Amino acid sequence: MLRKYLARIYVTLRPSVLDPAGTAVQSGLSHMGYDNVEHVRIGKYIELHLTAVDEKTATEQLDRMCNRLLANPTIENYRFDLKEVAVEMGASM
Amino acid sequence: MLRKYLARIYVTLRPSVLDPAGTAVQSGLSHMGYDNVEHVRIGKYIELHLTAVDEKTATEQLDRMCNRLLANPTIENYRFDLKEVAVEMGASM
Repeated sequence: MLRKYLARIYVTLRPSVLDPAGTAVQSGLSHMGYDNVEHVRIGKYIELHLTAVDEKTATEQLDRMCNRLLANPTIENYRFDLKEVAVEMGASM
Repeated sequence: MLRKYLARIYVTLRPSVLDPAGTAVQSGLSHMGYDNVEHVRIGKYIELHLTAVDEKTATEQLDRMCNRLLANPTIENYRFDLKEVAVEMGASM
């Protein structure tokens, strides 16, 4: 029996890494009159569906996907949450 | 009295809009052996600090910032949450 999960992955630059895009957005907001904004940091938000036998397996696979492809561990942090969206009958993985 | 809020903003492509970057990531994961992944969608995750007199004002300002700069309402949706992180004494805005 397989379970289908919705994974929501948040990839952010490590605090020590400069964020020129964030700086540009902050400058743009300031030019629009929003001087009350600071510390703008821009990251990625990834949604995907993942089929796995259980949440532990899904978590382990997502950790590997994040470290190998979705994030750059040298300069980025990631976190994710999983939400079960369906149970399917089928071959186990 | 001013309050400082941490805003976490999630910008996603509207469901009807194609996501070539998401398709490329899905293909990459598939080549790495993760055939159990589908519906990959890539969006933006923005964090910023915002100073405002209250949460209602902060919410209204963020809505305007999202519509005018942070998101492209024609092809993107956005949502955000606010978390109060500090209270400061100072001139009202």
